[in-house]
Amino acid sequence: MASNLSNRRWLLTSYPEGMPDESHFELQENVEVPALEDGQILVHARYLSVDPYMRGRIAPGANYAAGVEPGGLMQGGGVGEVIESRSPDFREGDIIETRDFGWQEYVVLGPDNGVTKVDPDLAPIQSSLSYLGMPGLTAYFGMFEVINAQPGDTVVVSAASGAVGQVAGQLGKAHGCRMVAVASSDDKLDWCKEIGYVDGVNYRTAADDLPGALKAACPDGVDGYFDNTAGPIHDAVMENLAQNARIAVCGTVSLADRLGQPDIGPRYHRQILVARARIQGFIVFDFAETYEEARNHIAGLVQKGELQFKEDVSEGVETMAASFLKLLYSDNFGKQLVRVSG
Amino acid sequence: MASNLSNRRWLLTSYPEGMPDESHFELQENVEVPALEDGQILVHARYLSVDPYMRGRIAPGANYAAGVEPGGLMQGGGVGEVIESRSPDFREGDIIETRDFGWQEYVVLGPDNGVTKVDPDLAPIQSSLSYLGMPGLTAYFGMFEVINAQPGDTVVVSAASGAVGQVAGQLGKAHGCRMVAVASSDDKLDWCKEIGYVDGVNYRTAADDLPGALKAACPDGVDGYFDNTAGPIHDAVMENLAQNARIAVCGTVSLADRLGQPDIGPRYHRQILVARARIQGFIVFDFAETYEEARNHIAGLVQKGELQFKEDVSEGVETMAASFLKLLYSDNFGKQLVRVSG
Repeated sequence: MASNLSNRRWLLTSYPEGMPDESHFELQENVEVPALEDGQILVHARYLSVDPYMRGRIAPGANYAAGVEPGGLMQGGGVGEVIESRSPDFREGDIIETRDFGWQEYVVLGPDNGVTKVDPDLAPIQSSLSYLGMPGLTAYFGMFEVINAQPGDTVVVSAASGAVGQVAGQLGKAHGCRMVAVASSDDKLDWCKEIGYVDGVNYRTAADDLPGALKAACPDGVDGYFDNTAGPIHDAVMENLAQNARIAVCGTVSLADRLGQPDIGPRYHRQILVARARIQGFIVFDFAETYEEARNHIAGLVQKGELQFKEDVSEGVETMAASFLKLLYSDNFGKQLVRVSG
Repeated sequence: MASNLSNRRWLLTSYPEGMPDESHFELQENVEVPALEDGQILVHARYLSVDPYMRGRIAPGANYAAGVEPGGLMQGGGVGEVIESRSPDFREGDIIETRDFGWQEYVVLGPDNGVTKVDPDLAPIQSSLSYLGMPGLTAYFGMFEVINAQPGDTVVVSAASGAVGQVAGQLGKAHGCRMVAVASSDDKLDWCKEIGYVDGVNYRTAADDLPGALKAACPDGVDGYFDNTAGPIHDAVMENLAQNARIAVCGTVSLADRLGQPDIGPRYHRQILVARARIQGFIVFDFAETYEEARNHIAGLVQKGELQFKEDVSEGVETMAASFLKLLYSDNFGKQLVRVSG
């Protein structure tokens, strides 16, 4: 069967020095799909995921996971249909999710690729890339394990309408927190308020006085901050810490254009000391042992109708690079996905 | 009795804008000592404490405790002898310690001043200002509650020969940690090694490549950092984080000359994220409920002969301002004290 297929896939051409552009990626066509070995499956992509962490994977510096080298296949998660199987665990027609899909239409996966079955009757299959997948789990562990959000806490979330932020906001609201969104447009903030954020700051229009704008939204200070961006939003939070504030460093997408260069700016040791604040970095993989508990918690909200989720879907594998750049420039609205088939 | 005495005391003349100098302080002489009211005691200072936190108290900005206003008495702890008592709790001849002594020879104290009796047979009375007092307790809680130091951890301490740092180093050594000192001179580092630090970095002579010098002393990275200084030493640690590093922000004395001005420098969100590091500010007062446990732990080391302690003692209340400036310029060696009498 494989011999009838030709794959399209995206390669990294070179490490970007600042913000990447389309020239850093190349769409390779008519790529042969290899024949399966024992234990392997061939999967046709339905949806590919586009996530901020990918910026860290295309930089030469140290990261928490091995990156892509120039000439290599772009990394990323995806959900698709098994179209050929030499594995006893999967049959043709199964829907599976893996973070080892890559930016391509077809992938051959083996036992080491962390493939999980997706039940298409439970939720739309692409939710395995969002609220029932890594972004949703990230939101859960950031809110409850790192920030340790308590009812009544004021919790600020940056990139609040993104894949992680929208779940964090709704988890926090359901837990009795006062959730405050930071996003790049009033449209995004309006939608954040629809799903449970009580207030919001547009970091573009408020750029002249971000600390002041955040203070207006958080008059009693910030108890928790879910930091998906770093940069000036972080700074504004540091000027508004409540006592015993907890900051979860989850992403640094505002630094996307300066990876490899130092990030220079104000530092906040006095504020950390005076507020007894805690700043903690985390990666969702560290909590793998309790994924199931987190997924059940989120699925519970879905069943009660308390979780809304917005997607921003592009069509065709050929839009992967453009979709990724859209995300880096905050021009997406909701979880960024590319629909490849189905 | 009070009417026979005349007090000498130090006032703040104005807020320093950068590093303070002697012109910011004024020694007032021939000050009348008021008569006691019921419940009060009159205390003659034996030793006054000189501590880095005092820099934060003479700045107009927000701090964790109310500061000194221009014209006001300089704040500070001290130990002295009760020379008159109208309190049922104290008799003439008792030795007491309080953090409400102020930079002066005589003080009138009441029930709200947190006065504790000192047993002169247990240890030299000035130890109530150092290893059995706030600096010792700060070292204990920083090491065991904030850093949560574990046997085998590499723990870096800045201002390692200071009042907090020398106790932190010896507590860590006794706990099985690999302790690394950062200090301002080779003499200080030599002494740090005598008391149990296994290696050290002179931040002045290594200033050209502090991250490299720290890497040489911590080849497996930094598991814990007891940050008494902030500034470039912090930066060097952030370049050398081990996975799950814990950083206790205890003091910011390197920022002494820039309080009120922004501290601009490299920021480390990527490092925090990749290392899953935790940075936490703390103040010893937050742990008041377990002071006794901490004091017993430290006293246990003293009894076993496992705690050495170096003091830097100036003579006479008139040396308070000069002693404080010496501390800010790292020219002291050991816990800075002023002996007033006895």
